[in-house]
Amino acid sequence: MQEFWLPQGFRWSGHHCGLKSDPEKPDYSLIVSDREAVVAGVYTQNLVCAAPVVLCRERTPGKRARAIVTNSGNANACTGSRGMNDAKQMAEDVASQLSIDASQVLVMSTGIIGEFLPMGKLTAASLRGVETLASDIAAFDDAANAILTTDKGPKTAGCIVNTSQGDVRIATMAKGAGMIGPNMATMLAAITTDAHLTPEDAQAILKEAVDKSFNCISVEGHTSTNDTVILLANGAANEAPLSGEDLVRFAAEIENTLIKLAKQIPDDGEGATHLIDIVVKGASSVPDAKQIAETIGSSNLVKTCITGNDPNWGRIASAAGYAGVPFDIAGFKLWLNGVLIFDGGEPCEFDAAAVSISMAESRCVYIEVGLQEGTEEARIWTSDLTTDYVVFNSDYHT
Amino acid sequence: MQEFWLPQGFRWSGHHCGLKSDPEKPDYSLIVSDREAVVAGVYTQNLVCAAPVVLCRERTPGKRARAIVTNSGNANACTGSRGMNDAKQMAEDVASQLSIDASQVLVMSTGIIGEFLPMGKLTAASLRGVETLASDIAAFDDAANAILTTDKGPKTAGCIVNTSQGDVRIATMAKGAGMIGPNMATMLAAITTDAHLTPEDAQAILKEAVDKSFNCISVEGHTSTNDTVILLANGAANEAPLSGEDLVRFAAEIENTLIKLAKQIPDDGEGATHLIDIVVKGASSVPDAKQIAETIGSSNLVKTCITGNDPNWGRIASAAGYAGVPFDIAGFKLWLNGVLIFDGGEPCEFDAAAVSISMAESRCVYIEVGLQEGTEEARIWTSDLTTDYVVFNSDYHT
Repeated sequence: MQEFWLPQGFRWSGHHCGLKSDPEKPDYSLIVSDREAVVAGVYTQNLVCAAPVVLCRERTPGKRARAIVTNSGNANACTGSRGMNDAKQMAEDVASQLSIDASQVLVMSTGIIGEFLPMGKLTAASLRGVETLASDIAAFDDAANAILTTDKGPKTAGCIVNTSQGDVRIATMAKGAGMIGPNMATMLAAITTDAHLTPEDAQAILKEAVDKSFNCISVEGHTSTNDTVILLANGAANEAPLSGEDLVRFAAEIENTLIKLAKQIPDDGEGATHLIDIVVKGASSVPDAKQIAETIGSSNLVKTCITGNDPNWGRIASAAGYAGVPFDIAGFKLWLNGVLIFDGGEPCEFDAAAVSISMAESRCVYIEVGLQEGTEEARIWTSDLTTDYVVFNSDYHT
Repeated sequence: MQEFWLPQGFRWSGHHCGLKSDPEKPDYSLIVSDREAVVAGVYTQNLVCAAPVVLCRERTPGKRARAIVTNSGNANACTGSRGMNDAKQMAEDVASQLSIDASQVLVMSTGIIGEFLPMGKLTAASLRGVETLASDIAAFDDAANAILTTDKGPKTAGCIVNTSQGDVRIATMAKGAGMIGPNMATMLAAITTDAHLTPEDAQAILKEAVDKSFNCISVEGHTSTNDTVILLANGAANEAPLSGEDLVRFAAEIENTLIKLAKQIPDDGEGATHLIDIVVKGASSVPDAKQIAETIGSSNLVKTCITGNDPNWGRIASAAGYAGVPFDIAGFKLWLNGVLIFDGGEPCEFDAAAVSISMAESRCVYIEVGLQEGTEEARIWTSDLTTDYVVFNSDYHT
């Protein structure tokens, strides 16, 4: 079955090549555009960044890209010059199978840091990866599954955008469940579209959409070594680059789709039992609002009281208070799942048992902070903190 | 038995007045100087601060203080104007029993945020608190026990300082096991000394010592509403204020004693199985070094790999890389329990099993980062993150 939003002119594959010990888990993913595509990229801000990130930074933005190869199970990070050679080799292997130039291939890696890639397995994988490429939804799903690490399931989103040149399609996939910080994380995403874009528009649209989506989520505030978001726009759907209202509509749909995709990450946070949706309104600037939202969202004390469906709002007020953003407590309001709980320095009377039940009964818990400093606002999404997270992360490596 | 470092001219008491449900757990603590004492204070930087913090800020530094009253089990934070009146009443109750002025009493509170104090119990407690005051070590221990909340045990430290005017004594107590951030936390400390100090020297010495001790610890990076450190210096041991070399030696001993006291807090971090000691050397400034150390120390991924005795050093390198401090990766070195693990962007060969055993066998795990940016360094202490922490904090309030 051809999913209606799958873009034209792309093929996908995903299979197990032996990086993960479980043979049922795919670990090698390939996305190929049948024609040269405009490519844009946004990357981790971590100084300690992985070899594939260094490589992709050199290759984006551009207009002759043909493929994205991704391995999971090994991050190829902190691997020095040998790691750089290995990342280049991954691109060369794919290029050789497709008879294209290695510089036309982007590389993403995710998994354990500090171990070298088993290059024999990866070279063999490039052969099978190219042989099994297909343009249907099953192949897309295979590719989306093969980029996962600790995720419970694949994360995809897609849409169709109507333009004056006809429909263009957007299909996106992401991975990420831990080491997720507000400036990207062990988070990989590949965005494919058959829209025709200029490299400059592609890069600008991607940057803006990432700011509103992936840069608004966190699991534990840890910005990883490998974060990468790559957009491939192959122009199969329309002759001339999108412009004017078409471009605005396309950019808005990219943003909406990436928000849909990004929210799936904290919702699948390692061991998470709640998605936490935090809105701060009435700030004097967007960065101020975001700083308060992120400080609340990265507090283990806030996360754990939400795990316990405990309306222990003092922890939320306290986190807002140490965010480093000045505000007048007299204008401070706090709502939990829509119930006003703290107003102008005074606690409100509320039915704690009812709020606790509303928390227990919904996957998503809503925290809203109202200030009277201005009219700006920001919104972030994060996950709660459970014993499963700790068990999982204290038993990952050895 | 009179402990040798107990200062002269102080009396202590601690008993259960009914704020905690367990009648075995004391929750009302009193420290009284028999003469007027110089007083200094350092407080939380949280904008959302508790009523007793507002009160103490007005009353320090000063030179006529007589008492510190502390309740545990209720933070009297986010309680508005009624909370302010209650904090003042706590001071008035004690003042009335001692026939002194209410402004001579300092107040500290710790516990749940957002609930009003049961003032009837606290007024009754002031009577029994004053009646049971004594100058021996048992009374000191009673007072130190009565300020605890989730702590597993009391935290005390003391010493004698030899001066040209004879010996002076320092006795300190603290509480804190959770909500501990690098800029103080739900952390209370009372420092008593029979040294004679000027108010200016007392405040300067306290500020400097807190920067080197309590401001270098964290459990989960949450700066609480109630952090308070009060120093009472009653001058019972010497006629003239300490000065010159005496003052320098005294300040150094205050700092050493507070470091000893502060380290007991993350070591008793809620559910903690390891104390983590993080040193960053070779930075271009102390704030840079501290920023990297704190970013490593507040990473849940670092904490959990230490919980699991897992030398998963990539998480440490990655945390250093997103600390927001620029450094050259070529000059970056990382040691775990003394073993060099990552050097100049390349992983080192090391015996992971042996490092894991060394982590499992010691309460304290040492992380050292070496940079080549300069000659400045910083050191912080934190705790690991266990399932017990999550269980405990998701089941605290309701």
